[in-house]
Amino acid sequence: MLLRMSSLFVRTLREDPADAEVASHRLLLRAGYIRRAAPGIYTWLPLGLRVLRKVEEIVREEMAIAGAQEVLFPALLPAEAYQASGRWDDYGPTLFRLKDRKEADYLLAPTHEEMFTLVVKDLYSSYKDLPLTLYQIQTKYRDEARPRAGLLRGREFVMKDAYSFDIDDAGLEDSYLAQREAYVRIFERIGLPYVIVSAMSGAMGGSRSEEFLHPTAIGEDEFVRSPGGYAANVEAVTTPVPASIEWDEDTPQWEVITTPGANTIADLVQVANEGFPRNDRDWEAADMLKHVALTAVHPEGEREVFVVALPGDRNVDLDRVSAALAPADVEPATEVDLENYPQLVPGFIGPGVLGSNAGEEDSIRYFADPRVVPGTSWITGANAKDQHVVRLVAGRDFIVGTPMECAEVRAGDPAPDGSGDLEIARGIEIGHIFQLGTKYADALGLSVLDESGKIRTVTMGSYGIGVSRVLAAVAEINHDEKGLSWPTHLAPAHVHIVATGKKQDVFDAAEDFANQLTARGIEVLYDDRPKVSPGVKFSDAELLGMPVIVIVGRGLAKGVFEVRNRASGEATDVPVDEVEDFVANLVRS
Amino acid sequence: MLLRMSSLFVRTLREDPADAEVASHRLLLRAGYIRRAAPGIYTWLPLGLRVLRKVEEIVREEMAIAGAQEVLFPALLPAEAYQASGRWDDYGPTLFRLKDRKEADYLLAPTHEEMFTLVVKDLYSSYKDLPLTLYQIQTKYRDEARPRAGLLRGREFVMKDAYSFDIDDAGLEDSYLAQREAYVRIFERIGLPYVIVSAMSGAMGGSRSEEFLHPTAIGEDEFVRSPGGYAANVEAVTTPVPASIEWDEDTPQWEVITTPGANTIADLVQVANEGFPRNDRDWEAADMLKHVALTAVHPEGEREVFVVALPGDRNVDLDRVSAALAPADVEPATEVDLENYPQLVPGFIGPGVLGSNAGEEDSIRYFADPRVVPGTSWITGANAKDQHVVRLVAGRDFIVGTPMECAEVRAGDPAPDGSGDLEIARGIEIGHIFQLGTKYADALGLSVLDESGKIRTVTMGSYGIGVSRVLAAVAEINHDEKGLSWPTHLAPAHVHIVATGKKQDVFDAAEDFANQLTARGIEVLYDDRPKVSPGVKFSDAELLGMPVIVIVGRGLAKGVFEVRNRASGEATDVPVDEVEDFVANLVRS
Repeated sequence: MLLRMSSLFVRTLREDPADAEVASHRLLLRAGYIRRAAPGIYTWLPLGLRVLRKVEEIVREEMAIAGAQEVLFPALLPAEAYQASGRWDDYGPTLFRLKDRKEADYLLAPTHEEMFTLVVKDLYSSYKDLPLTLYQIQTKYRDEARPRAGLLRGREFVMKDAYSFDIDDAGLEDSYLAQREAYVRIFERIGLPYVIVSAMSGAMGGSRSEEFLHPTAIGEDEFVRSPGGYAANVEAVTTPVPASIEWDEDTPQWEVITTPGANTIADLVQVANEGFPRNDRDWEAADMLKHVALTAVHPEGEREVFVVALPGDRNVDLDRVSAALAPADVEPATEVDLENYPQLVPGFIGPGVLGSNAGEEDSIRYFADPRVVPGTSWITGANAKDQHVVRLVAGRDFIVGTPMECAEVRAGDPAPDGSGDLEIARGIEIGHIFQLGTKYADALGLSVLDESGKIRTVTMGSYGIGVSRVLAAVAEINHDEKGLSWPTHLAPAHVHIVATGKKQDVFDAAEDFANQLTARGIEVLYDDRPKVSPGVKFSDAELLGMPVIVIVGRGLAKGVFEVRNRASGEATDVPVDEVEDFVANLVRS
Repeated sequence: MLLRMSSLFVRTLREDPADAEVASHRLLLRAGYIRRAAPGIYTWLPLGLRVLRKVEEIVREEMAIAGAQEVLFPALLPAEAYQASGRWDDYGPTLFRLKDRKEADYLLAPTHEEMFTLVVKDLYSSYKDLPLTLYQIQTKYRDEARPRAGLLRGREFVMKDAYSFDIDDAGLEDSYLAQREAYVRIFERIGLPYVIVSAMSGAMGGSRSEEFLHPTAIGEDEFVRSPGGYAANVEAVTTPVPASIEWDEDTPQWEVITTPGANTIADLVQVANEGFPRNDRDWEAADMLKHVALTAVHPEGEREVFVVALPGDRNVDLDRVSAALAPADVEPATEVDLENYPQLVPGFIGPGVLGSNAGEEDSIRYFADPRVVPGTSWITGANAKDQHVVRLVAGRDFIVGTPMECAEVRAGDPAPDGSGDLEIARGIEIGHIFQLGTKYADALGLSVLDESGKIRTVTMGSYGIGVSRVLAAVAEINHDEKGLSWPTHLAPAHVHIVATGKKQDVFDAAEDFANQLTARGIEVLYDDRPKVSPGVKFSDAELLGMPVIVIVGRGLAKGVFEVRNRASGEATDVPVDEVEDFVANLVRS
């Protein structure tokens, strides 16, 4: 394979594109690997497409080893199956929807659970047909609210999605582990560090779910990990529940206090310490029980006001609340939302008016952080302006809301498995594996006959890798200030030969060398441009990022080529009669 | 490569699917190569996907030889560029349109002229950058009114589309010929007979255009060919224009005749022969000048009534008229259409009222078959009920409409190049090459500086191959009543090994043989199903259509395998120690 810079469809840009905020985006654009076609929608130019195909090939080989069979589904799909599964609504505005000329509803698939379920239902009918794992490498569509960072969060992107079909939970576990192991091999072959974190499955349904996150400061996903090896998506972190506290008749009774102007937790702490001091220590924010009114926006558009209670030293984490209430989205309650709930007095909400009249029109669902266990004593709102209540004991004086992970996770919080204190890190989601269970098989009627002739619902898993996103993540960790710096197995070409100067013998020698390498199966990008200065050629070679750069120029008179290692910058003059083996060894190492 | 029937995701169907009207559709479904996801939208199952990839690979190799570079564009595109080119409107309901969450207009691309134009504009600026040919193999979308015949006319399909960019017409001609030659090689390697026919370019714009048609009775495209080698799409056939005829004062003058009840050409011929007989011969239908009112439906929806004149022995060909008036669609004028034109008296339309008041509100465009040359004498309508006019001489008594190819082409018509009489045949469009010229470069501002520093608009070509359609066409000509019968270079596997019976030694021998072949790089599908009868296995093998079928069974006791040629049906018992070479030779031949 020989590419020539004189004819290759590529132009390098000297300037950083204005809207490119991360290195991979900036450099893939500047080096002419991709171009933007629309927000979050990119065109693959020849060099970029070559890298993409190499990533795909690694995925394909490992899928085959894992026993998965390749198929290819349409991207344009009729709505029916997605309506049956609920995802037509659950995806909200993230789903691209359209109508055909007969006004039938279609969508551009974000993933294909429904279609794989239907095709297996179509072809298979017996437990003997299972287990089965199918996959495709295919173009996916999601109308992201904020497409960003080039290929890292696109609206049209390349994904490997696999689906497993089993007769029982043990089979699903095996299929899940086979994909999990394939993912480990894939990311190791690609050379992309990863952390496997416990995750919530969100709109996908199902039970067990893990994400493969590539740790990086520019990642969109926050996750936590402990020294003992615990790792989880922030949404999936569970709070260790403290032991309940006994109370008896000596436990002080609650009383209402007036707290004019105490609109914040800090104000309230101050007022409490001044007017109602404790004997043992000062009141702290963690002694306050903060009640926050939120609004769940359900897929059909309905807005539901609910309240969460959490210790006053923590903030609500809307992502965690949204994950708990998926497929609803959650946002702060607005004034308009609250108009129908005069019992909620902003700044002074307390438990008395919450959850007690479930089923009635103005009932309000009430959730609480798991730390609010029976026997804990709080200062909280008294449901009237400028009034709070002190020493309100959970379980004695009020019914605690349904436990919900609604509070932010903080560095230093204990890991739920006792493996130490959590640290918070960021990562890019490069893979996600789900045990879906029977959600889709139930919705679409996928069952088979078991050994005893009984009908059994098939249990499923789904397994995704963001192929184009993986490419960007690889670029993120393989670059320097001069440009890209690909590992050999993913580079568009193994060797970049640069012919400098104007002498014909230099170009002849470079051309011969290019042909010698390609004859050995080495992929060569040859800069044969006759009238381009050495400086431009060198900086292009550094920007484009082939792992080995060979300069044929002045050294030719002394019988040497200069061989540069792009990543290390190391340069070696190698005699002409040794250079072919020298370069071949570099490429193979 | 070893596929095992025991785990391969495939199920054969004994019955023909109800809606599958052609052999390729029927057999690809029955053999489990594809499944229908929606009208005109198909899923590729493992065997089908393998064939598709082999077709793609041939296309890729020949594109590389032709110097075309591979890129990959999104399918989901913003509307702007297609609005600038006019195709947003011109495509009418065939374009899938949608809006994103910000209400911006998007489309699913039917082809990518606009986007390739923009990316070249984006990267290139000098004549030195040209010529350039880019291509992609990508998923295309067209909301066909009547998707049919499986992969032959789909709404989502795989296409190779290439685009050339040149500084001048000579360059375009070279680029065009390079693609044309690549197409010849591609279809010869694939093994698909083709005819290259002159074509109209329709909504694509541009000038020269040829189609590669695969001749077959089930083809949707009618074309003509002559013994001398002329071939054209019916829309593109031009009528040889007869010489004009001189007239002088002895040429009889016209007169109006009453023709009660003569509503058809046949009636009129009879009335004319009875009431106004000729001296030299009888009046014939070809002496009548038939005027037909039609309606052009313009892309924005406007309906325009116009009239075509043609000899009475021919019918209007609406496809040819539509091609002449593209991007408008043409249909017969309705009563409602005609309400505003009382001057058009149905059955009695004549030239007097046509074309003479161009620009006025009730003006009617007037077109005529090229045979209506000056001096020809006609019987035609007199624009009043039950009145015709005889001996109306074109050029003397009326102004002939603008020449238009509006009449049907008939077998026996002369070829326009004098190469003999035309015959009419049917074909499937498998490729289409266009000289677009500057239509897209003009619309989108693609120009470069030429040698003298002047701005020159780039001239373009576009070149398509329907990859999934080609696969179906191959299946069409490679099957028999038992099933598919692939040529070796496109088959999902080269050899289908069938182990019959229940004896372990048979399965061991078959397994060993499968491994021997795969070690030699031969692709094997091995029917290792333990409890399936030989009859089912044989009929599955015939339906699936691998070119070589090897039966390991009873013959094993005598030391032979049976080797069958799927296409010829020939069966040979081959001794076990010779069978590997025997099969390898068959696969390579």
